[in-house]
Amino acid sequence: MMSPSDNELLYRVGHGTPMGELFRRFWLPALLASELLEPDCTPRRLRILGEDLVAFRDSGGQVGVIAAYCPHKLAPLFFGRNEDSGLRCVYHGWKFDVNGICTDIPNLPPTFNSSALKDKAKLVSYVTREAGGVIWIFMGPQDKAPELPGLEWALAPAENVHTARWLQQSNWAQGMEGEIDSSHISFLHREFVPSWSIGKQVVQVTARIPPGIVDGAPVMKLKETDYGFVYGARRNTESGDYYWRVTQWFLPMFSMIPNDAFPRTGRAWVPVDDDHVMVFTYGYRADRPYTCEETAYMDAGHTFPPPLKEAAHQLPNGYVIDTWVPQANKGNDYLIDRAMQKTVNFTGIGAITDQDRALQENMPSGFGLGPGRVVDRSREMLVPSDMPVITARRMLIKMAKDLQKGIEPELPWQSTRFRVRSTSAISPEAEFDDFLKAHEEEMRATL
Amino acid sequence: MMSPSDNELLYRVGHGTPMGELFRRFWLPALLASELLEPDCTPRRLRILGEDLVAFRDSGGQVGVIAAYCPHKLAPLFFGRNEDSGLRCVYHGWKFDVNGICTDIPNLPPTFNSSALKDKAKLVSYVTREAGGVIWIFMGPQDKAPELPGLEWALAPAENVHTARWLQQSNWAQGMEGEIDSSHISFLHREFVPSWSIGKQVVQVTARIPPGIVDGAPVMKLKETDYGFVYGARRNTESGDYYWRVTQWFLPMFSMIPNDAFPRTGRAWVPVDDDHVMVFTYGYRADRPYTCEETAYMDAGHTFPPPLKEAAHQLPNGYVIDTWVPQANKGNDYLIDRAMQKTVNFTGIGAITDQDRALQENMPSGFGLGPGRVVDRSREMLVPSDMPVITARRMLIKMAKDLQKGIEPELPWQSTRFRVRSTSAISPEAEFDDFLKAHEEEMRATL
Amino acid sequence: MMSPSDNELLYRVGHGTPMGELFRRFWLPALLASELLEPDCTPRRLRILGEDLVAFRDSGGQVGVIAAYCPHKLAPLFFGRNEDSGLRCVYHGWKFDVNGICTDIPNLPPTFNSSALKDKAKLVSYVTREAGGVIWIFMGPQDKAPELPGLEWALAPAENVHTARWLQQSNWAQGMEGEIDSSHISFLHREFVPSWSIGKQVVQVTARIPPGIVDGAPVMKLKETDYGFVYGARRNTESGDYYWRVTQWFLPMFSMIPNDAFPRTGRAWVPVDDDHVMVFTYGYRADRPYTCEETAYMDAGHTFPPPLKEAAHQLPNGYVIDTWVPQANKGNDYLIDRAMQKTVNFTGIGAITDQDRALQENMPSGFGLGPGRVVDRSREMLVPSDMPVITARRMLIKMAKDLQKGIEPELPWQSTRFRVRSTSAISPEAEFDDFLKAHEEEMRATL
Repeated sequence: MMSPSDNELLYRVGHGTPMGELFRRFWLPALLASELLEPDCTPRRLRILGEDLVAFRDSGGQVGVIAAYCPHKLAPLFFGRNEDSGLRCVYHGWKFDVNGICTDIPNLPPTFNSSALKDKAKLVSYVTREAGGVIWIFMGPQDKAPELPGLEWALAPAENVHTARWLQQSNWAQGMEGEIDSSHISFLHREFVPSWSIGKQVVQVTARIPPGIVDGAPVMKLKETDYGFVYGARRNTESGDYYWRVTQWFLPMFSMIPNDAFPRTGRAWVPVDDDHVMVFTYGYRADRPYTCEETAYMDAGHTFPPPLKEAAHQLPNGYVIDTWVPQANKGNDYLIDRAMQKTVNFTGIGAITDQDRALQENMPSGFGLGPGRVVDRSREMLVPSDMPVITARRMLIKMAKDLQKGIEPELPWQSTRFRVRSTSAISPEAEFDDFLKAHEEEMRATL
Repeated sequence: MMSPSDNELLYRVGHGTPMGELFRRFWLPALLASELLEPDCTPRRLRILGEDLVAFRDSGGQVGVIAAYCPHKLAPLFFGRNEDSGLRCVYHGWKFDVNGICTDIPNLPPTFNSSALKDKAKLVSYVTREAGGVIWIFMGPQDKAPELPGLEWALAPAENVHTARWLQQSNWAQGMEGEIDSSHISFLHREFVPSWSIGKQVVQVTARIPPGIVDGAPVMKLKETDYGFVYGARRNTESGDYYWRVTQWFLPMFSMIPNDAFPRTGRAWVPVDDDHVMVFTYGYRADRPYTCEETAYMDAGHTFPPPLKEAAHQLPNGYVIDTWVPQANKGNDYLIDRAMQKTVNFTGIGAITDQDRALQENMPSGFGLGPGRVVDRSREMLVPSDMPVITARRMLIKMAKDLQKGIEPELPWQSTRFRVRSTSAISPEAEFDDFLKAHEEEMRATL
Repeated sequence: MMSPSDNELLYRVGHGTPMGELFRRFWLPALLASELLEPDCTPRRLRILGEDLVAFRDSGGQVGVIAAYCPHKLAPLFFGRNEDSGLRCVYHGWKFDVNGICTDIPNLPPTFNSSALKDKAKLVSYVTREAGGVIWIFMGPQDKAPELPGLEWALAPAENVHTARWLQQSNWAQGMEGEIDSSHISFLHREFVPSWSIGKQVVQVTARIPPGIVDGAPVMKLKETDYGFVYGARRNTESGDYYWRVTQWFLPMFSMIPNDAFPRTGRAWVPVDDDHVMVFTYGYRADRPYTCEETAYMDAGHTFPPPLKEAAHQLPNGYVIDTWVPQANKGNDYLIDRAMQKTVNFTGIGAITDQDRALQENMPSGFGLGPGRVVDRSREMLVPSDMPVITARRMLIKMAKDLQKGIEPELPWQSTRFRVRSTSAISPEAEFDDFLKAHEEEMRATL
């Protein structure tokens, strides 16, 4: 059970909050590279850690992520003209490059010394990188930007990777926690038959857990590492062997999960603000590119990105972001089919991620708290299978409190130890260390 | 005129508020029995007195109304599986019976002592009864649940009763007050011609007041009783006789109103939260079942349930309830027809209850109070015809304040005196007592 | 840069706020005369300076603007019957005339002294005038109502004037400021080609600035006057002459702008509440009536009213107003066409006023302020071309602070000096005084 003050520390991510500052020490996925396809294309509106930002690709192909408003009269730069190496505010023509530098103030009298004004008009901007089909952003002290995380999927050839993103209407933490909760896949994602239909389309199910593994109470084993932790969920099999699922959690909110044929997927939970989270999902394979069929299968929601539609989504405070939203959502009860729930799968909800969202977007914020999308963790009743969740919370809260005291997080980007893979296997090993040793080779990143 | 503090005492119904605690001493309609038609059917989301609840019918046909969230990780139980004598949370499989008792925690390691955990995991649950086509709930101290109120309509055979419910977007009290306001029917519900058309359908009007009774300023006579009060509104007739309408108000918010051919209807105003009220309506006849024509007439909105549509309605704090909402609503100005208002009826709004709602959902909460659906009663100018409203407020506020001091309400459920009927008649009696005496027989419940 | 306290003083307009009280010293446009076309027609819901009001035209053709709620039980008078010289509340039949005087209380017993009650029931009402196609309202001390402002467009024959109104979802001041910002028309309203198409319709563009005037940094010259100020924006031409645009700003928020063929247009920015503003636009010509083609051109959005649709718009606090809303709005990104932005005009947005609104409705209210539509002026970086905006703010804030100290504004309505016209011309005069002198004749109102 978590104290209300620790709960608040965990979920609040705005400027100056302990967790918000901790997130500013990590590279974060900001948008898909495919959203800024060409030089001088349409800008995209973002909100990350409560900050309103605009992303654009300039005439030379460089990506900029800068503050969303012109400093002159605070007009929104999203409506600006992306032209000739900069984004020009359409109100009075002030122009900014990808580094937020003001390069033109055309409505000044000729006698005016514009260079001092331009200096003063520099916008907040954040360094960016492209990797793994994603544009990354570092929002911490710009002179201390570390190396990009060497996650294997971010290093893989583009055709070997599949990425997507969407908006979830909950606090970031209650989404992320579902990633390190092996126990729930025996229930929430359970399927009763090997195929199901969505609309008229009949698709083959890839079971997340092999047939015959009915143990819903896995024993959890966890090892803290420099990048976060690796944990194993061990289930009994009928043959007396063990079914192990070994999963990584990378600070501050990346997951890597074994996923059969795909064969590894994971997500990053980037806080939009206290009430919303942008979910980035990736799948990759080291051996070959994805086929069209595999990509279509993923896009249909059968593995991780749920069926999505592009949207300009207005947040409660009136700010609009450009994103994707799931077709199944709170307004349509996630397209739940109660007959399907009786016989086909455990929830009656089609896509895996929609199953998670149905629960995570509808947790209560407590009596009398009014509108809010942050679960009141002081009311929880945690059990042994929640140990990875408890560990992640503890590590994050400790690091956030340390940072308040001036202790910077020790970032593992310099090490090679996070170059790992998740895996799952039926195996005779009962001990986690033995399993890890036996599977050391297949859990090492090679790209 | 009411003080702001008494106004607040009257409308606030959350946990620990005086009026909320008083309501917890009464049986309240929670949903229609027909909403949980079969064992193991789809659960229903409720909010009553600010508490989020889920109702379900188990495999044995028992109805449970329990807290809306699983105690483990606070996942919403609405998405749960209603299976084999309990509602199972789909997140990790915890299961609860109709009494909120946790009967299974399948994601625990075998070595774990689950029985202590199950005890701790018991959910809030409330006793229920089925009567009059309605599932009733008692939310007070569960060992002190009184008998069900012996209201005649709740005891009548199912085929003699018609019930419906819908959401009104106002505080409960400003809805309830329309029930005990005989004066307004001479205006708000006045009709100018004996028939009117809604769309292409032309229907016969049943006037609420006989033709020729034009007195819009009834003299009000009221007698407090153990169940609340009975009051008579006396109008002069052209012949020198009196037209009496005699109506009951049952604590804390039930009405019974004479309604010609139907011949008695009434409503219960169950607070959803401070800003919303669930209106339950009933009509019944003691002599015979309703005919299909009578039922269709009621459902068309010509007597009390307005034309409705089923909806999953999202409340401002993000919680979704399953209910019905009127087709005529604030968003479409209650389908007002200004030409109809000139010549057909007083409002230009078709259904009686929509006429009431148009006013009650649009009362002001006062300067600068921002969003809110609670009228500022300190600004009212009450007149003699508001005496029943004033009496009901006074009785409720006194009982709520008494309860705060530890004085429990004296409930009349044990008595037979509330077994009464409303009536209306043209009669020579000028005195209320004389009228009641002359009509004693027809005002006595027999079912 | 403005202090947060001055910013708050500028934008808050509710009862008792300094700026709200200052606005109550001026005649304000309330609605179009055409909205109340006939005696006893449908009432209209307004909100002005945070007050909920209902406007109606009585049987004799008189217009009343009175408080929106009946004083008895606070029922909304919008649903009332407009009948026989008064608006009758449909709840209990209380009736009010255009002066807010209660003329009938039909639900009182005959013995009741209704005349004292009627006196007490008098509603707030405000004096009105019709002029220029607009119904004006004065919300200050009713015995101190000054003469109507003698603005020429308000005195012109009806057929020479074109008026419209619509809702803008921003604070009034950030809308008004665009009126006195000559610099922005060189950018926001710049066009690259002489015609553009909206949908299938190809229309001729009337350039706001003559072809060949490329100077985007006008020199600003301003003279304070008794009515507010007149200012000139001087642009260099290639021939060595000057292009002057001379514009008036009338207290507290009226503009008059030279507009070529129309030939003068302007707007009034009437605060609805802190977060919304009703924009009234007018165009007029002194010489002859508008032709049908000119009117159609204006209604299509090519000069000032954007394409509009009539709507009953629900404000955040639940109050509904009857108004027009622009077809291009925040929800559809103002129908921006990014291809059009590359080659046709500067914004890719079709209608001039939509170009302004796209920016003004999306300015930030600052970190962590939550929902709000008031720009945080303490973050601005103003430049010389913003001098008229700075002057207007300073004058308004000073007058509002003076009024708090009891110093009433000196209203210029008695003078004839505000009977002026805006103009634009290419001229050899470099000095503002010289230009004004040379154009004295054409800048004098004659109607």
